[in-house]
Amino acid sequence: MEPVLFYGVPHGCSFGSIVALEWLGQPYRLARIDMLAKSKSTLYGRVNSMHQTPTLLLEDGRSLSESFAILHNIAARDFGRQLGFAQGTGAHDRLNQMLAYLHTSFHSAFSPAWTAYKLKEGDPAIKMLRDLAREKAASGYAYLQSHLQGRDWLAGDNRTIADAYMTGIARWGEDLGLFDLKTEYPSLHTYLQKLEADKAVIFAHAIEDETPAVTSGQFLGHITLDEAGARLAA
Amino acid sequence: MEPVLFYGVPHGCSFGSIVALEWLGQPYRLARIDMLAKSKSTLYGRVNSMHQTPTLLLEDGRSLSESFAILHNIAARDFGRQLGFAQGTGAHDRLNQMLAYLHTSFHSAFSPAWTAYKLKEGDPAIKMLRDLAREKAASGYAYLQSHLQGRDWLAGDNRTIADAYMTGIARWGEDLGLFDLKTEYPSLHTYLQKLEADKAVIFAHAIEDETPAVTSGQFLGHITLDEAGARLAA
Ligand SMILES: N[C@@H](CCC(=O)N[C@@H](CS)C(=O)NCC(=O)O)C(=O)O
Ligand SMILES: N[C@@H](CCC(=O)N[C@@H](CS)C(=O)NCC(=O)O)C(=O)O
Repeated sequence: MEPVLFYGVPHGCSFGSIVALEWLGQPYRLARIDMLAKSKSTLYGRVNSMHQTPTLLLEDGRSLSESFAILHNIAARDFGRQLGFAQGTGAHDRLNQMLAYLHTSFHSAFSPAWTAYKLKEGDPAIKMLRDLAREKAASGYAYLQSHLQGRDWLAGDNRTIADAYMTGIARWGEDLGLFDLKTEYPSLHTYLQKLEADKAVIFAHAIEDETPAVTSGQFLGHITLDEAGARLAA
Repeated sequence: MEPVLFYGVPHGCSFGSIVALEWLGQPYRLARIDMLAKSKSTLYGRVNSMHQTPTLLLEDGRSLSESFAILHNIAARDFGRQLGFAQGTGAHDRLNQMLAYLHTSFHSAFSPAWTAYKLKEGDPAIKMLRDLAREKAASGYAYLQSHLQGRDWLAGDNRTIADAYMTGIARWGEDLGLFDLKTEYPSLHTYLQKLEADKAVIFAHAIEDETPAVTSGQFLGHITLDEAGARLAA
């Protein structure tokens, strides 16, 4: 059977894995996980012991967690699509560097603000945490904008899993009310707008928002967590 | 010419890349970067625009940053050493999952405590930040300890770049005075002690501490930042 991606809502980093699956163009299914649910699902705990998203349920019933590993698994399914590159090449090194930067420094830049988001209104730590996130994320946006000078895509000459992942997390600055990207990082904003016009990105938004979603890949539909559970390896 | 690893002191995450280079057994050099230096070196800024360590200066004069990318580059130089696995295999997926976990959730668990470390004594945020780090890192240590049940190494049947990286960051819990690993995570501690007895790990400590270091690989000596600068691609 085809792989199943467990993606988290709202606005999770799973978004990039949905985009990558669309770009790959091979059959896959989705299973939706509400990350704000009051109680954690025991069944999902068997899929991902940290109760995080994304997780990719593979054809053999094993689950693969960590977005970095999932994106590379997707890319390696068809190098003809050029979503990734062969091991041992300079292009692969550059892609790993960019993906690692996005998954470590850039992803974690926002985490103080997510911590603040969960605190009670009026908590004096909120401002400190949001200021810290703004400072860290600002250097991230600035770095990414300067990296993109003279380049169309983050790694290599075409869109890759790095661009897919970027679409899912670059939006957090505005989600958290910390930045206005259009005025603060105009050329980065132009790059992000180009991605927003991509069919796979439009599809991923529709999936998140539960509006009609038109696949340009081979999306075969959602399955429930229970249905996915039946496919889990013991 | 052989690659040069820029490693940061004190106690940086570069440690794992030194261990991996020793395990690889091919010629390499080291360049030492003091991460606590008052002023940032402009020359090192050309090597790594974020002034972070580690960075690997490649044979062609280009520099590769991000530990995740560096470790994979090292592993791919000789799969016979089994420090990593071929793309498209399940073993490669599992290794990527573990490496990604260590570089994202586990590495960033400590970051509130590093933030606290830089605050002025008496700042009320210190306790909150340290508590947050302890909570996050505790779930990391617990996860890693349970993952190691019935396993000798983090990924696959032999030591890999994941174990190399682990040696450099697992120590932070004690460095920061947050944990006593021997009493709190005894079986994880046993695994870490096994690594501490490894020649490459003993070597990496000696390098960090500037005590006599005996290579069991092909370490050719240190070069200065200026010497390395002369090899940088334009
Ligand atoms: N290191 C993981 C982190 C994934 C992650 O942070 N997922 C978030 C959604 S964007 C999540 O599941 N948060 C819920 C939680 O951590 O409990 C990866 O890169 O996949
Ligand atoms: N994402 C980078 C992070 C590297 C990192 O955090 N390096 C630390 C030393 S362990 C550093 O250079 N800190 C100094 C700084 O960030 O200014 C990687 O995985 O290589």
